[in-house]
Amino acid sequence: MKKINIGLLGCGTVGTGVAKILIENKELISSRVGADLVLKKIADIDTERDRGIKFDKGVFTTDPFKVIEDPDIDIIIEMIGGCGIANDLILKAIDNNKHIVTANKALIAEKGNKIFSAANKKGVDVAFEASVGGCIPVIKSLRESLVGNRIKSISGILNGTCNYILSKITNEGSTFNKALEKAQANGFAEADPTLDIEGIDAAHKIAILSSLAYGMELNFKDVYVEGITKITPADIEYAKQFGYKIKLLAISKEENGSVDIRVHPTMIPFNNLLSNVNGSLNAVTICGDAVGEILLYGHGAGMMPTASSVVGDTVDIARNILSGSSRRIPLLSYCTDKIKKIPIIPIDEISTNYYFRFLTKDRAGVLAKISGILGKFGISLTSVTQKGRKSRGSITIVMLTHKAKESDIKKAMSEISALDIISSEPVVIRLEDKNPED
Amino acid sequence: MKKINIGLLGCGTVGTGVAKILIENKELISSRVGADLVLKKIADIDTERDRGIKFDKGVFTTDPFKVIEDPDIDIIIEMIGGCGIANDLILKAIDNNKHIVTANKALIAEKGNKIFSAANKKGVDVAFEASVGGCIPVIKSLRESLVGNRIKSISGILNGTCNYILSKITNEGSTFNKALEKAQANGFAEADPTLDIEGIDAAHKIAILSSLAYGMELNFKDVYVEGITKITPADIEYAKQFGYKIKLLAISKEENGSVDIRVHPTMIPFNNLLSNVNGSLNAVTICGDAVGEILLYGHGAGMMPTASSVVGDTVDIARNILSGSSRRIPLLSYCTDKIKKIPIIPIDEISTNYYFRFLTKDRAGVLAKISGILGKFGISLTSVTQKGRKSRGSITIVMLTHKAKESDIKKAMSEISALDIISSEPVVIRLEDKNPED
Repeated sequence: MKKINIGLLGCGTVGTGVAKILIENKELISSRVGADLVLKKIADIDTERDRGIKFDKGVFTTDPFKVIEDPDIDIIIEMIGGCGIANDLILKAIDNNKHIVTANKALIAEKGNKIFSAANKKGVDVAFEASVGGCIPVIKSLRESLVGNRIKSISGILNGTCNYILSKITNEGSTFNKALEKAQANGFAEADPTLDIEGIDAAHKIAILSSLAYGMELNFKDVYVEGITKITPADIEYAKQFGYKIKLLAISKEENGSVDIRVHPTMIPFNNLLSNVNGSLNAVTICGDAVGEILLYGHGAGMMPTASSVVGDTVDIARNILSGSSRRIPLLSYCTDKIKKIPIIPIDEISTNYYFRFLTKDRAGVLAKISGILGKFGISLTSVTQKGRKSRGSITIVMLTHKAKESDIKKAMSEISALDIISSEPVVIRLEDKNPED
Repeated sequence: MKKINIGLLGCGTVGTGVAKILIENKELISSRVGADLVLKKIADIDTERDRGIKFDKGVFTTDPFKVIEDPDIDIIIEMIGGCGIANDLILKAIDNNKHIVTANKALIAEKGNKIFSAANKKGVDVAFEASVGGCIPVIKSLRESLVGNRIKSISGILNGTCNYILSKITNEGSTFNKALEKAQANGFAEADPTLDIEGIDAAHKIAILSSLAYGMELNFKDVYVEGITKITPADIEYAKQFGYKIKLLAISKEENGSVDIRVHPTMIPFNNLLSNVNGSLNAVTICGDAVGEILLYGHGAGMMPTASSVVGDTVDIARNILSGSSRRIPLLSYCTDKIKKIPIIPIDEISTNYYFRFLTKDRAGVLAKISGILGKFGISLTSVTQKGRKSRGSITIVMLTHKAKESDIKKAMSEISALDIISSEPVVIRLEDKNPED
C-alpha cells in the first residue's frame, strides 16, 4: 500500500489528539484513503511525557528542523500556535515543498496573506479547517459545498470560552468573574483569557471566513472587536424580558461590494437557532443566494474535535498527493488573481438595532430629555421600559431601537452621558434582528 | 479559460434551479474554479416553457440521448427522478465515460450498488450530495471532513414533508389530514405523498448515509420503516407533557460490528437540538469517536437549496477533471474492496425506550393487569400517567419504559390487546433518550 509521510510540529493537547487518531484509527483511515498515513516524526520540547499512545520508536525529536527538512515527509502539521516560531517553521517548510495543515487561527488571520503567497509560489497546499469552529466543517462548506452560492452573510458563535461564560451568567445567574473562574477550572479558558474574552480569537476566525466567502484578502486588523467583559447579569436579564439572549457574535455581511465584519456582544432573538447554542459549543450560520441559510454546529475546541478537523485536512492533502492534484482548490476559495482588497466598513458607518440601558436620577422629565436627544439624531425606538426606585432613588430605563447609524448612537450617548440626571455610563448593546419593518 | 461542458437531463423545478445557478452565477463560479462551467445541452419534454432564465440558443432538446452521447460533454446532471428511465440513462452515460451528478435518493438507495459498480469499471465519478438533506453538506462531511472518525451513529430529520406535518400538528393543533392538505397547498408535499409520509424517502436517505458511514453495501430493503400517518394530536400532547417532541427520525447506529437502521416516529427530548427543527427544514446529527456530535441544518428540499448541492457536486467533479484526479475519493467513502455486506439488525431484536398509550375501561385493577403483563416480559417503567373518565367512561394510561426489546414489546402488546378491559389498539411510539440510568 502507498504511504504518505507526515511530520507533526508540537505534541501538546491537540497535537496528541492528532497522533491518537492517526495511530489508533490507522486502519480505518487506510480503508477510506487507499494509502497509509504514517506519522514519521514529531517535534516537541517534551519527548518523554506519557501521552497514552503507542508511538513508533524514534519518532520524537526536540528539533523541529529534523521534521521540516526530512525529504521523505510530505505533509507538515503545525500544532505550535501563535505567530512567532510557528510562522517561521511554516514558511521554511513551504520552502522545502511541504504541504501544511494548521489549526492556528491567529497565524492565518494575521500572517495568512504572506503564507498563502509563499505556498502559491511553491505550489503546495495549506489547509486550516481546524482554525475556525474546531470540528465544524465550515471552511470545507464555504470552499466546496457552497461554491455555487454568492455568500451574503455569516454569523457565528466562534469562541467557546465566551459562550461558556455567557451561558453560565444567563442560565445560572453567575457573575462574569465567577463564570470565568469556572471556565478556567474546567479547561474552557486559558490562564490568560484575554484573546478569548476580548473577542480577538473570534475576530481572527471571522476574518478567515470572510476572506473565503467574498474573495477578499485576509484583513484581521480592520475587524471591529469588542469583548464580553462589560456584560452584566442585569443586561442579560433585560434582554431575556425582550425575548433575546446575549451572545458574543462574529458577524460578516456583504452588501453592494462592501463588507461589514465585526465581533461584539449581540442580542439575538430566541427564535434564532444560535440563541440555543450553549456552553462551550460553537455554531455558524451561512447565508447564500441559493442555499438560503444553513447552520453547522459542534465542538469549537478541545483535543479530539479539533484533531478530527486536522486529520480531515491531512487526508484531503494526502488524496491530492495520491491523485497528483495538489492545489486542486484555491487556498482561499477564489483563484489568486480574483482575490481583491475589499475595505471593511468602519464601525461608525454601520447601521443596526440597539439596546440601551440608562441609570438615571428619579426626577420628572428624565424620559423626555433622553428621548429628545435620541430624536435629534434620528434614533427611533421600538420599545421603552422604565423600572423605578429600586436602586437608591435611581430609575433604570431600557430601550430598543429601530435601525440607526453607529456614529449617531455615539453622539447621542455622549450628549446623554453629560446630562446631570444620568447616574452612570449608559450601556449600549447591538442587536441582530430580522424585523421586517426595519 | 478552460471549459467543462455539462449536460442536464430534466429541467423541472430543481433542474431549472441548477441551470439558474450555472448561468446567473457563472462568473462567480469561474472565479472560484478557474474554468467555465458551460451548460451545453438540456433534455426535457418541455423545451418551450419560460423558465425565467436566459438560456443559450439551441441548448434544449427532447432527446436525452443527444445529451449523454455528446462527445464534448464531461458531466451529466440527472434531474429526472425515479428508478426507471433515470437509471437507464445514467448507466448509458457511465458507459459513455460521463461523470454523473444526481439528487435521486431512490435510485442511489435502490440501484446504487449497480451504478457504483459500473462507475468503478469505467473510472468515472458519481456524486449525490443533493440526494440527502437537500442543501446540507452531509455526504461531503461524512466522506471528507470526518474521514478520521469511526462513525458511531447518525440521526436525522430527513423528510421535510413529514416534519412540516408534525410541526403543524404540534404547534397549531392541526389534524394529520389538515396538515397534509396545507403541506400540499404550500408545495411541501406531492399530490401522492406516500413516499414521504410512509417514511420511505427518509429510509432511502438513511440507507445512503449508513453506507457512507460504516463502509457497508447499500441496503435499503432491510431498513425498518414506519410512517407518520398514525400519529395523533393526543400522543403529541402527551409527549409534550413528558418533555418530548415527536419527529420522524431516521436512525442509524453501529455497535460491535452490527448496524441498527430504522425510520419511525420517535419521541425526542426538548434538549435534543433536533426537537427544535421545525417546518420543512432538515437536520442531521453525526456522532464520531473524535468529533463527538456535530449537527448540520438547512433546507432539505426546494428548487434552489437542492440545486446548490448539485452545483457543489458538479464543481467537485469539474475540479477533478481539471486536475486530472477523477475518482480522487471513493464513491461510497470506503475503497471498493473494503465495502462489506453488513446485516441490519431486524427490528424485533432492537432495544430502545418506548411510550405506550392505552385506552381502557374504568374498572378496578386495570393498571395491575397491564403492568403485570409488562413485568412478565421484563419491561420496566420510568413513568406512568393515568387520566380518568373523560372519554365516555374510558381511562387513558400513558407509560414510558426503560430500554426493552422490541420482540418483548410486541408480545406484551398482543397480550394486553386481548384483555377485555382494553378499548382500542394500544399506541406504541419508540423513544430516543440519553438517560444515563438506561
